[in-house]
Amino acid sequence: MYAVTIVDGILEWQEHPDPLPGPGQLLVQVTAAGINGADLLQRKGFYPAPPGYPVDIPGLELAGTVVATGEGTRRFGVGDRVMAVTGGGGQAGLAVIPESGALAVPDGMAWESAGGFPEAFSTAHDALVTQAGLSAGERVLISGAAGGVGTAAVQLAALRGAEVVASIRDTGRGDVVDVLHRLGATSVITPDEVPVSGPFDVSLELVGAPGVEQVLPHLALGGRIVVIGVGAGAKAEVNLLAVMGARASISGSTLRSRTETEKASVAAALEADTARALAEGSLVVPVAETFPMSEAQAAYDRFAAGGKVGKIVLLAP
Amino acid sequence: MYAVTIVDGILEWQEHPDPLPGPGQLLVQVTAAGINGADLLQRKGFYPAPPGYPVDIPGLELAGTVVATGEGTRRFGVGDRVMAVTGGGGQAGLAVIPESGALAVPDGMAWESAGGFPEAFSTAHDALVTQAGLSAGERVLISGAAGGVGTAAVQLAALRGAEVVASIRDTGRGDVVDVLHRLGATSVITPDEVPVSGPFDVSLELVGAPGVEQVLPHLALGGRIVVIGVGAGAKAEVNLLAVMGARASISGSTLRSRTETEKASVAAALEADTARALAEGSLVVPVAETFPMSEAQAAYDRFAAGGKVGKIVLLAP
Repeated sequence: MYAVTIVDGILEWQEHPDPLPGPGQLLVQVTAAGINGADLLQRKGFYPAPPGYPVDIPGLELAGTVVATGEGTRRFGVGDRVMAVTGGGGQAGLAVIPESGALAVPDGMAWESAGGFPEAFSTAHDALVTQAGLSAGERVLISGAAGGVGTAAVQLAALRGAEVVASIRDTGRGDVVDVLHRLGATSVITPDEVPVSGPFDVSLELVGAPGVEQVLPHLALGGRIVVIGVGAGAKAEVNLLAVMGARASISGSTLRSRTETEKASVAAALEADTARALAEGSLVVPVAETFPMSEAQAAYDRFAAGGKVGKIVLLAP
Repeated sequence: MYAVTIVDGILEWQEHPDPLPGPGQLLVQVTAAGINGADLLQRKGFYPAPPGYPVDIPGLELAGTVVATGEGTRRFGVGDRVMAVTGGGGQAGLAVIPESGALAVPDGMAWESAGGFPEAFSTAHDALVTQAGLSAGERVLISGAAGGVGTAAVQLAALRGAEVVASIRDTGRGDVVDVLHRLGATSVITPDEVPVSGPFDVSLELVGAPGVEQVLPHLALGGRIVVIGVGAGAKAEVNLLAVMGARASISGSTLRSRTETEKASVAAALEADTARALAEGSLVVPVAETFPMSEAQAAYDRFAAGGKVGKIVLLAP
């Protein structure tokens, strides 16, 4: 098979031996694979793949067709359309994934959407639903709503019946504001408007320390801040009296470091909550642009340049 | 009845009209009532009593005998020994409490212990068990272990089967170290020894910001910091990357602001977990000193002076 390959910090399209599925694993012929921030770090030599995954093939999510199954697999068979978060190696002609982490791709879901769905929606769902326990009728702030995880979070929160306040840096960009409203945001604000838009039951923080400091005084009783991105800074000054007074919590997490069993729970919870909406087409994966896998270097550069709304997805040749 | 009464910042022993129990309430002839930090604040004119409680009679906990019951009470009757957290007015000859918040005082439990039990043990139990979800086998740090809540927390954590690391300012005080070991601490350390005593699954923070900053890098995966005291400072610098990496949470709360229903849950959870241990005498309320209620002024001054191990408890004449 061919795969996107990291060679001295440059991405090339190189031949590798075909992988084989072990017990409980699926061999997937990959059709589409989204790019994520961690891939850029890995290209630079940081954030190495966890043990058991190819060291030189990036890719944290994929969608494709099962072409072989390992011993003991139960749910999926050859020919089934699946998508999954993976520890690495997703941007390749073939990839091996544990069956426990795979989701069915509903009929009618485009490959490019399926390739960009797993990472962002798993991250957003785990943070909003599993960690923050977001309920219908609660007001949630999504801080950094324009990115892949942000647009996923806006939709998942709206699907859950929450009132969604989406915060972005520049509300002058009418196209972004329109997209967020269409995805389910009740209002779209700048960070400066946080104080007059609360109180918030849940705050999903994708930007970092400034967002945590901004929202803390505007939490409702029992408010929960979940941090999953710190691009704008990691050191937050936290007023513990405000935490106590609101009976609040500040928590955070990452997905990649979790065990296979933990990732299987994340996938199962996500699928249970979204399978119907995906089949009906009421959840959308905004895709900014697609590139062939052989042009991964250009695709990563486009991703790194920023300013896009939605995912950059690689397509197999 | 007579009650401890705040008169221009001074405590006097003055006559008041007898209170009457309303629906769902118990009238208690108070025998013993502990002093807490909030009483000192109230004496100074800060931290006023919540609506429905006497404005000039302090006292957040009490133990005594039921002498009358309001309409619709079910569990307790005249002559029963009860103890409870209350919104205020506990340091008096008579006090009215909601039946839902009352705990039975087991035979053989001394009045002075019962008078000093409810506030500290409710606070510690709610934080450790309900909020942090402390489980058997986990390692917990109690930061500020020598005080009333700290000694309660050490015992409750040990009762739950946790490994208890008690942190105090001065481990040179052999008497304090001995008490903490007797109450169930596996080790007694100074805050400087936190880095070599972890990783911690749970950290109960009774001191404030410095403790939060100290323990954060030494949390186990899924670690939980619960803050219920900020005497040493409320502004903590929190490294959000450390929170994400450990999949940690920082939360906080206060008891006094809760609704009657919420306080009833706290009392029920505490009683379910401790009734047997209390009856067997295996939970101890360290009492540093007792004073008659008529000498409340001296008792508060003793409390404010610090350096004691255990509660200061007022006894009815």
